[in-house]
Amino acid sequence: MVAIDLNCDMGESFGNYTMGRDAEVMPYITSANIAGGYHAGDPHVMRETVALAAEHDVGIGIHPGLPDKMGFGRRTMDATPEEVRDYVLYQLGALTAFAKRHGAEVQHVKPHGAMYSMLSESPDHARAVMEAVLEVDPSLVYLATDMNIYEVAQEFDALDAVFEGYVDLDYNADRTLIVEKEVAPKDPDLVADRVVNIANHGEIEAVDGTTLDLPAESICIHGDGPNAVELLEAIHDRLDEENVDIARLDELV
Amino acid sequence: MVAIDLNCDMGESFGNYTMGRDAEVMPYITSANIAGGYHAGDPHVMRETVALAAEHDVGIGIHPGLPDKMGFGRRTMDATPEEVRDYVLYQLGALTAFAKRHGAEVQHVKPHGAMYSMLSESPDHARAVMEAVLEVDPSLVYLATDMNIYEVAQEFDALDAVFEGYVDLDYNADRTLIVEKEVAPKDPDLVADRVVNIANHGEIEAVDGTTLDLPAESICIHGDGPNAVELLEAIHDRLDEENVDIARLDELV
Amino acid sequence: MVAIDLNCDMGESFGNYTMGRDAEVMPYITSANIAGGYHAGDPHVMRETVALAAEHDVGIGIHPGLPDKMGFGRRTMDATPEEVRDYVLYQLGALTAFAKRHGAEVQHVKPHGAMYSMLSESPDHARAVMEAVLEVDPSLVYLATDMNIYEVAQEFDALDAVFEGYVDLDYNADRTLIVEKEVAPKDPDLVADRVVNIANHGEIEAVDGTTLDLPAESICIHGDGPNAVELLEAIHDRLDEENVDIARLDELV
Amino acid sequence: MVAIDLNCDMGESFGNYTMGRDAEVMPYITSANIAGGYHAGDPHVMRETVALAAEHDVGIGIHPGLPDKMGFGRRTMDATPEEVRDYVLYQLGALTAFAKRHGAEVQHVKPHGAMYSMLSESPDHARAVMEAVLEVDPSLVYLATDMNIYEVAQEFDALDAVFEGYVDLDYNADRTLIVEKEVAPKDPDLVADRVVNIANHGEIEAVDGTTLDLPAESICIHGDGPNAVELLEAIHDRLDEENVDIARLDELV
Repeated sequence: MVAIDLNCDMGESFGNYTMGRDAEVMPYITSANIAGGYHAGDPHVMRETVALAAEHDVGIGIHPGLPDKMGFGRRTMDATPEEVRDYVLYQLGALTAFAKRHGAEVQHVKPHGAMYSMLSESPDHARAVMEAVLEVDPSLVYLATDMNIYEVAQEFDALDAVFEGYVDLDYNADRTLIVEKEVAPKDPDLVADRVVNIANHGEIEAVDGTTLDLPAESICIHGDGPNAVELLEAIHDRLDEENVDIARLDELV
Repeated sequence: MVAIDLNCDMGESFGNYTMGRDAEVMPYITSANIAGGYHAGDPHVMRETVALAAEHDVGIGIHPGLPDKMGFGRRTMDATPEEVRDYVLYQLGALTAFAKRHGAEVQHVKPHGAMYSMLSESPDHARAVMEAVLEVDPSLVYLATDMNIYEVAQEFDALDAVFEGYVDLDYNADRTLIVEKEVAPKDPDLVADRVVNIANHGEIEAVDGTTLDLPAESICIHGDGPNAVELLEAIHDRLDEENVDIARLDELV
Repeated sequence: MVAIDLNCDMGESFGNYTMGRDAEVMPYITSANIAGGYHAGDPHVMRETVALAAEHDVGIGIHPGLPDKMGFGRRTMDATPEEVRDYVLYQLGALTAFAKRHGAEVQHVKPHGAMYSMLSESPDHARAVMEAVLEVDPSLVYLATDMNIYEVAQEFDALDAVFEGYVDLDYNADRTLIVEKEVAPKDPDLVADRVVNIANHGEIEAVDGTTLDLPAESICIHGDGPNAVELLEAIHDRLDEENVDIARLDELV
Repeated sequence: MVAIDLNCDMGESFGNYTMGRDAEVMPYITSANIAGGYHAGDPHVMRETVALAAEHDVGIGIHPGLPDKMGFGRRTMDATPEEVRDYVLYQLGALTAFAKRHGAEVQHVKPHGAMYSMLSESPDHARAVMEAVLEVDPSLVYLATDMNIYEVAQEFDALDAVFEGYVDLDYNADRTLIVEKEVAPKDPDLVADRVVNIANHGEIEAVDGTTLDLPAESICIHGDGPNAVELLEAIHDRLDEENVDIARLDELV
């Protein structure tokens, strides 16, 4: 049976600052990418987010970022592969403690924002992170946001990597994503169609009509989109109709 | 055979700032209390300190502090038991990832500075931390800096706790420590005598001549003291003469 | 003619995190307490908030906090008078640069949260801050949140101090404020009555019906209250009817 | 009479972390570049450094850095001109408050580390900073570390800019500096010769023997060099012999 994972960034609130609608979105996803306290999040938010994920049997993943809370981890910086690797390990480890308190394990790793871009552009950075992830826990799944990273992951036989696709953003014909300045609500039918098409055929239609290969086993949903819950409900309904299973990353690898 | 652990705070450097003489001291100790990036330390320093400890087969412990790098974690703050617990878990988890990369486990937990004082003065804070430590890993040893904390630890059957004594500071008759503003070199013979007396008799002489019960199985050495290495060499020689073994915390519990 | 200042905490957003409704509230107030980057705010938010205040001819004040963004500056900490003084000066100075770019001057100082509480409970802390404020700029107005602080301010002949009252919270009979966990919308008529009563008679009715002296020349409005703008409109209408002027702090001293 | 300024980075300690030998070096210099709390320094260190500079009648300058204490401000980051400008203003303003407490003014601005590099490589970044410096205080001197920056400064008629040279590092023939990994002690005679040659002839000899134009009116000394004080004494003696005056930046413009 065909199955697909639904992942979402979570736990990005910080202190008195609230971001996202974690409690509303968590029931609809299977994997949560939880901020590690560097670009967003803090120990209390991490604990609460892990508890929420455990309650809904959602796979717990670390969403590590650069040490730049003022820039929300979205600014690349001239950090070495070793520095980035250590930032990932630090945040991964921190999350592990909260997961263990709930009898859970960390399921996956998905770098955030500018850290993701740095790994995408520098295979040395990507390798340093992946090697270390394997050394710490070979059962961790690496959730690859683009093909550059996915290809580096293939160098490591022991590393389970899953490629993710996007359905609430449009793709250019070169498989890059069109990021909106102002996020508009998306059409639930279109979004649900895309998920089914990715799950069944590994394809998505680009903005110019080109059909793109998109061999994704996970779909990333932006939980802070204006109609995220509506989209998730439409996705669930459609996948149910189409007999596509929704499954956590660790059930897919 | 009588045995005693020698512990020291380690990994307190931060970025370009160097603190302590970790490389010189590590060969002489059996347990390292490694800063977790809150009051001191950072991911790179943690990695290097874990590697150094692993190289010398020194027990790796987390030395968690309050989120106050500017105050070096020495200022109490009005944080709840849950907040302090989450700070401990975060730093404990982070260290675990670095330990695992070296095939090691985290051995113990010893809160730093004002966090230690807060736990000593508030059993609710101490309990919150200890419960969480047990939930994350029941094999962790809690290194208790004073009797208040040691007594709370006794409430938890499953929690291994070890009491630590000080030999490079003087005790008052009420078993509080006399903290010096300017740290003077200490007499190696006196310090070695104290270690032997603690190991063999569980006693130390206070500054007024009173004999105090000090049932310590671990001795804390200040690694940044002006003659720390000299003291450690004297302690090693004397313990060797007296047939007292030097053993890691996890061999003592 | 009777006149009163309306002040509000502003500029508490941080990086990608939004807090408050500064743009909606600014047109209705005369003095803005702008976060200084320690408990909240950052250089970009400070710049934007100063620009917004300057556009509406609102008096620019520093709202300095403790270095505890995770706790939003609401947790007291064991910092010395000198440490707190230096935190105030740092944030005051930082704001001054942004004010100067807009041809404005900083008008006032109003410590935030736990820093305010520390000054209220320790006259030594309050004196250290006030002395330094005078040394940096004797034209600054100190906005005193309670009588403890107002009385310390009276020790300094050269320091202009203004006492502030609250109208969107209820007072106890001992003139302490009742802080709500969940902030409910307030009755605009009641709130406007209170402002007029403070402006004309220096009095407010406590929750038990007692009439309290409240010699306030400034009213603090919580800009993040659920109906803050509605309250401010009601206040403006009522003050207009009653011929009470609304004036900046620096016009009142 | 020929005159030259001697500048040095100062105030880079942070909390319990000590860096540099400010008290030893301050008597020999005329301009201090004081860290602003972002890459290094904190409010207490700033206050102490300002007091020390004021005591020796040394010109007080801000040495602003990127918000990256873990990387000591040495890693470029993808920050916009507006972001960098706001970081400079924030730190400049903060220092101003401490200067005012000592009856002093801030004399100059000299960006640190990666921020300097970013301004050198991007004229848009440099312009944004310089415009804002002029808006805040047109009497401020911009201390230009290389020719790229010095040339951008020339675009602003109202901006006083001074070019600085280095004598305790060697120049390549293309006028870039050779940065050492391990800093060796320097020959005091050679260093003093270089200062005199810069002051009198605006020239320095590169490592390959080429004579370079170096129209510097200020010399930057690394205060943490192994024999910095010895070098400064040699420079003072030689300049005295050669009748070259040592003068603050604000006396040179």
